[in-house]
Amino acid sequence: MTDRPPDQDDQATSPGLTVPVPLGDRSYAIRIVSGDPIGFGPFARSSLDASRAGRGCRVALVVTDANVAALASRHAEALAGQGIAAEVAAVPPGEGSKSLDQAAVLLDRLIAMKADRHAAVVAVGGGVVGDLAGFVAATYARGVPLLMAPTTLLAQVDSSVGGKVAVNRPAAKNIVGAFHQPVGVWIDTDSLESLPPRELRCGMAEVVKYGVILDASFFDEVERTADAMLALEPGVVRRVVARCCELKAEVVSQDEREQTGLRAVLNFGHTIGHAIEAVAGYGGPFQHGEAVSAGMVAEARLAERLGWIDDSLADRLSNLLRLLGLPTSAPGLDPDALLDAMTLDKKNRGGRIRFVLPRRLGLVELTDAPTEADLRVVLGELTSPAV
Amino acid sequence: MTDRPPDQDDQATSPGLTVPVPLGDRSYAIRIVSGDPIGFGPFARSSLDASRAGRGCRVALVVTDANVAALASRHAEALAGQGIAAEVAAVPPGEGSKSLDQAAVLLDRLIAMKADRHAAVVAVGGGVVGDLAGFVAATYARGVPLLMAPTTLLAQVDSSVGGKVAVNRPAAKNIVGAFHQPVGVWIDTDSLESLPPRELRCGMAEVVKYGVILDASFFDEVERTADAMLALEPGVVRRVVARCCELKAEVVSQDEREQTGLRAVLNFGHTIGHAIEAVAGYGGPFQHGEAVSAGMVAEARLAERLGWIDDSLADRLSNLLRLLGLPTSAPGLDPDALLDAMTLDKKNRGGRIRFVLPRRLGLVELTDAPTEADLRVVLGELTSPAV
Ligand SMILES: NC(=O)c1ccc[n+]([C@@H]2O[C@H](COP(=O)([O-])OP(=O)(O)OC[C@H]3O[C@@H](n4cnc5c(N)ncnc54)[C@H](O)[C@@H]3O)[C@@H](O)[C@H]2O)c1
Ligand SMILES: NC(=O)c1ccc[n+]([C@@H]2O[C@H](COP(=O)([O-])OP(=O)(O)OC[C@H]3O[C@@H](n4cnc5c(N)ncnc54)[C@H](O)[C@@H]3O)[C@@H](O)[C@H]2O)c1
Ligand SMILES: [Zn+2]
Ligand SMILES: [Zn+2]
Repeated sequence: MTDRPPDQDDQATSPGLTVPVPLGDRSYAIRIVSGDPIGFGPFARSSLDASRAGRGCRVALVVTDANVAALASRHAEALAGQGIAAEVAAVPPGEGSKSLDQAAVLLDRLIAMKADRHAAVVAVGGGVVGDLAGFVAATYARGVPLLMAPTTLLAQVDSSVGGKVAVNRPAAKNIVGAFHQPVGVWIDTDSLESLPPRELRCGMAEVVKYGVILDASFFDEVERTADAMLALEPGVVRRVVARCCELKAEVVSQDEREQTGLRAVLNFGHTIGHAIEAVAGYGGPFQHGEAVSAGMVAEARLAERLGWIDDSLADRLSNLLRLLGLPTSAPGLDPDALLDAMTLDKKNRGGRIRFVLPRRLGLVELTDAPTEADLRVVLGELTSPAV
Repeated sequence: MTDRPPDQDDQATSPGLTVPVPLGDRSYAIRIVSGDPIGFGPFARSSLDASRAGRGCRVALVVTDANVAALASRHAEALAGQGIAAEVAAVPPGEGSKSLDQAAVLLDRLIAMKADRHAAVVAVGGGVVGDLAGFVAATYARGVPLLMAPTTLLAQVDSSVGGKVAVNRPAAKNIVGAFHQPVGVWIDTDSLESLPPRELRCGMAEVVKYGVILDASFFDEVERTADAMLALEPGVVRRVVARCCELKAEVVSQDEREQTGLRAVLNFGHTIGHAIEAVAGYGGPFQHGEAVSAGMVAEARLAERLGWIDDSLADRLSNLLRLLGLPTSAPGLDPDALLDAMTLDKKNRGGRIRFVLPRRLGLVELTDAPTEADLRVVLGELTSPAV
């Protein structure tokens, strides 16, 4: 993988880090700052100007949810300062807003603003707002410029990088969507201060994942800085977020549209994690990050059973997750139900279940080697009553 | 522009012509036959196999409308013969089906079929079915393979070539969409036999347009074969359709996503044509092709006023359109209302109205040279009471 970002913030304006996302003529920058609401204006303008359609941008629709609407208003003002007339549309918080109905409301709002193909859509919020606003940007006038200002840790390290946008249908999550890269991503780590602690921890599960799949020394760093992260020390948060963005951007730039299979490495912990979410019930005791946390431990144990790693890795991983306040098991869930859920998982074709498993810390491999027997042992451990 | 397609049908299977659409790794073929419903099966299979996602295709959703459902069923059977389980979904005929609501019904149908990203969407119908099914294919699972079997002349020569797919919102047509190229287009000219004559004439307006904008000798040919076209002589229809596809494909392959402006040449007749549609009322006395017919004559007169062409071109054009049973004027419409409608037209930025006007037969140029005075004269002629 690439070199680490510079240890020192660059001092161009206020302290911050820039992660370039190399995607040919869709390349863009992720800028990571702490407490710089004004800076969004010039960043937005220069990101738009660097894109083909954004150059003529005069109007923008800022999409947000009620929990982050105050920040969204400040971003709208920052856009006004750059000659971009921005309206704010707040959707109800929660996964339910990732719907075609909400998309239609936003699309009609753009029509009412007489937005043309140079108008920008700006997502200020978590992954829900990002995915919804991104879908609107992907489809309005066959695609308009998208700016993202993610405000949850999960959105900062995961959902706002990669260009996947989508809404749900009642019977399937993320089933209606597109690949639509933003023209720029603005991350102000100060936004995390108002985030519920549970949401912060969920984001940390994905942070830990990047270490396991791609970068052993980053895993070390997350171990060392876990407390500072949970305490939201700005310098630490910036570095950790930047490294995650960089790692994900590198995977994405090699497999932008999920065609080569490389992007699958990001699914570590997710095969079993998705099953936990499905069986425990969406909106139930396991949030996504929590399910992934327990799923990563179980999948590491699976790799252990294949003889790929010894038990030190799974132990280290589960210690770190516990330190971060994340679950490492799912006591009481039905192993058979988990197995059924996995067999339905769309990533698996032709009967065998495919996993992304660690070969060593920082390296994973796609495999269908685990037998049902292996899996039953691991699911048994995962679901056994807490001791 | 490229050479003409071979004068002789190739005899590989049944008589037919193939037009390649060169778009890099999105390249595909348009196959034009007459009376070969069985041939669709092997064509679909080989088109799918030539595309990345289509290779594993086992299921397909055939989208159609009630007026062409019988043909759609035959296509579904042809797919079954290739090991592709196909379900048919018929939407109500008419522009009203190009909606997010209808798209949602089809997307849910795909979910119910457990369609994965290798499933195909097959459009069998006119431009409405093509645009709707195309939007569904573009967004389901972030994009699945699309096959088109256009059954109106307009869809065969225009809407099924170019990858533009869209649905409407109440306040704006085609505002929600994507660029999503099909993996193959199958045109059986026999489908035109059941088409209402007025729909056939409307398609002829776009046929004539290609001659004016890109190919003088094709314009000659359309003049010579107008009667044979209206009588649906298979050999003539195949050649004319193939040439139109080829001309549009060439424009599209140079400006796939409407970024260079080249694709604008296709708008000849449409600036005034759209105004006629809007002022006369959608679903009113002017269908799209009829409005474009009158619009082309008016825009040719505008070029005459600029001194770009002499009156022989507009005369020839309007004679041909009359011969085809198409209107060449819009008596009684209000010129001021037309002017207002044009000023709102989304193609125009910054006040001036932009037109695509003929320099000579077969060559057009984008210009904002016409003054309001020029335009008023031409709109006056266009709307003056019939003599
Ligand atoms: N596109 C992708 O690649 C991708 C990747 C992973 C997840 N996702 C999607 O992301 C979504 C989950 O994202 P999420 O975890 O950010 O959830 P979310 O957007 O629902 O945010 C979680 C909660 O935090 C609130 N919130 C957001 N920012 C806040 C702030 N700064 N202060 C206080 N409250 C704040 C929100 O209102 C919400 O109630 C899912 O829909 C998932 O499918 C997408
Ligand atoms: N995507 C593009 O690039 C593009 C270009 C031009 C037009 N369009 C769109 O195309 C649509 C118009 O297409 P259209 O003119 O084909 O209209 P249409 O699809 O509504 O078809 C016209 C009528 O003919 C019927 N019909 C279709 N095939 C038939 C057949 N073989 N026999 C008997 N009846 C048949 C239909 O049921 C309908 O009633 C518009 O929505 C327009 O926006 C798209
Ligand atoms: Zn995740
Ligand atoms: Zn047209």
